[in-house]
Amino acid sequence: MKKIAILGSTGSIGTQTLEVVRENNDIEVLGLAAGNNIKLLEEQIREFRPKVAAVWSEEKAKELRENVKDLDVKIVSGMDGLIEISVIPESKILVTAIVGMIGLRPTIEAIKAGKDIALANKETLVTAGHIIMPLAKTYNVAILPVDSEHSAIFQSLQGSPRKALHKILLTASGGPFRGRKREELANIQVEDALKHPNWAMGRKITIDSSTMVNKGLEVIEAKWLFDVDIDQVEVVVHPQSIVHSMVEFVDGAIIAELGAPDMKLPIQYALYYPDRRFLRGDRVDFATLGQLTFEKPDLDTFDGLRLAFEAGKTGGSMPTVYNAANELAVSKFLDRKIKYLEIPEIIGTCMENHKNIANPTVEQILQTEQEVYEQIESRW
Amino acid sequence: MKKIAILGSTGSIGTQTLEVVRENNDIEVLGLAAGNNIKLLEEQIREFRPKVAAVWSEEKAKELRENVKDLDVKIVSGMDGLIEISVIPESKILVTAIVGMIGLRPTIEAIKAGKDIALANKETLVTAGHIIMPLAKTYNVAILPVDSEHSAIFQSLQGSPRKALHKILLTASGGPFRGRKREELANIQVEDALKHPNWAMGRKITIDSSTMVNKGLEVIEAKWLFDVDIDQVEVVVHPQSIVHSMVEFVDGAIIAELGAPDMKLPIQYALYYPDRRFLRGDRVDFATLGQLTFEKPDLDTFDGLRLAFEAGKTGGSMPTVYNAANELAVSKFLDRKIKYLEIPEIIGTCMENHKNIANPTVEQILQTEQEVYEQIESRW
Repeated sequence: MKKIAILGSTGSIGTQTLEVVRENNDIEVLGLAAGNNIKLLEEQIREFRPKVAAVWSEEKAKELRENVKDLDVKIVSGMDGLIEISVIPESKILVTAIVGMIGLRPTIEAIKAGKDIALANKETLVTAGHIIMPLAKTYNVAILPVDSEHSAIFQSLQGSPRKALHKILLTASGGPFRGRKREELANIQVEDALKHPNWAMGRKITIDSSTMVNKGLEVIEAKWLFDVDIDQVEVVVHPQSIVHSMVEFVDGAIIAELGAPDMKLPIQYALYYPDRRFLRGDRVDFATLGQLTFEKPDLDTFDGLRLAFEAGKTGGSMPTVYNAANELAVSKFLDRKIKYLEIPEIIGTCMENHKNIANPTVEQILQTEQEVYEQIESRW
Repeated sequence: MKKIAILGSTGSIGTQTLEVVRENNDIEVLGLAAGNNIKLLEEQIREFRPKVAAVWSEEKAKELRENVKDLDVKIVSGMDGLIEISVIPESKILVTAIVGMIGLRPTIEAIKAGKDIALANKETLVTAGHIIMPLAKTYNVAILPVDSEHSAIFQSLQGSPRKALHKILLTASGGPFRGRKREELANIQVEDALKHPNWAMGRKITIDSSTMVNKGLEVIEAKWLFDVDIDQVEVVVHPQSIVHSMVEFVDGAIIAELGAPDMKLPIQYALYYPDRRFLRGDRVDFATLGQLTFEKPDLDTFDGLRLAFEAGKTGGSMPTVYNAANELAVSKFLDRKIKYLEIPEIIGTCMENHKNIANPTVEQILQTEQEVYEQIESRW
């Protein structure tokens, strides 16, 4: 049996991870952590029978404890609870599908406890890649990417010596506003931005996809995951989202991973790496596929993407500023407090105002996040 | 130093192999074999200084011997000469870029002498895959494909367990007559068929590309090279020839190799496998690439491709019939003795008339070829 724990089990990646568990018969779920959705978490506990489950607030934990008192499961809460899930002794892989900086400390503790990380939490590498990657090396654990693009890159790199890697070609759908000019985005409403052409995802990530900040975060992640310079990461807009990403080697050969848009593929690949298992689902049919197109991203219109390259190149605490500013700006946009184009504007302003810390500790990263939040709250 | 010998050094693949040698500084060419072009062979001898060189006719060998008497090189001829080049003791890799069944015996001798085979001779696996692949296994030598498509498949397979392979997606440009109907091909002239959209190749292979018999031969080769059923090989027409081929795994992931059309890439990959080296040349630029399209092959119009699946499924000596009939038919078409559509017609008729031998020896393969030749000469 493959033994795993999941942070963020009631979210999009979390529920799809449990679908992968359901489709296979040799994965045991030892721990589940969710935010607030104790109704779904209870269903998951009843189906997958973890030893421990965590919810964020102790109040919700109490309620859940009462609801599942017929079962042999320990209910924990808060950061201590998350960490308890992350370091369950017999667990081999921690799936970090939790959203936000909250994933940082549990991931670090899991690495120290020798768990491989199936990484779906973007903030981990964006803000703390300089801490996480060396730590993973020290503890000899694998960081297995669980999103479509990084998994594609990871898969494409498997057969070749790492020193032969020339550049990473990170594909982007371009989102719902591909082809529009900056001035055409001025009056974008929440409803417009929530329409993603290819993938069904959560609200925050769908907005990030429309602004291409999502791709920007992936650029910074790719830098850490694959140990390349930010200049070696090239974003290629590919509206059909069939090519999930590519790598170019020094001999000019490009290796790509293609597939139907199904997150279960990268999830399953991470859980069984380096093996591959049958996976039910749609297949790409080249007879009916039509055309695949590629174009350069429009960095004038999608300023959020340009700023990611800038933040990634600066490094230190700057990517934390980029991420935190975006997070709160998107939240304010979803609450209809700011206009669409203010999202990249806020990111840019926060980056300009930030005094960069070259090699921030976890505390400094969290402190930077707080400062960015306060700055935004005071000005917007 | 990497020590190699080349059969067919004055042909298209042979000269490009020598370009790869020229671009690197750690490959030593120990042997060169050519057909008749002793002028170019002499130049190659003077540049690469092999220990032994072979030409087919003893008459030409005599002439060459006289021309290079200032050098320390042994000039040999005939089948014995080819075999001598193939088994040069210090050589590690034999590049079999020779065209036709003539490559069969030297390849077998090279395998028995423990040489890895950089295989560019299609006939070897098409006619004798059932002999070559087990022999390579016995002598623990690698069969390294040196054409664009099989190299792409080979590269795409590197990072995944072989048992996870679901199917091979062999791409085809479709040739100059893609999209035409059978009746539109009735009056095709030699000049029309020699215009290939993407690759500059020899005359015979350019005709084979126009009839898609070339792709048919590759289908049969792929079956042997990658140890799959013929039904696991799917031809995908992809006119831009950027995707050099793909593989689909059981989880639905498709891994593809893409690149500019440059034979030096698969040649160099075979010579340095599993390493990758810098290679000068064009790169794919996704910003200017435009679209990649894919479609099903038209097996009614390109009957030669359909017949390859039939021959490959039947196995035994049938692929030899397919190959030999095509070879002579194309030669007759190039000599303007038969019409274009008679090429697949001749192949089909020869296959119908053949009494299949399930597991032919090399002698039976060569005998089958002779019988096909005689049948064609007597009827067309």
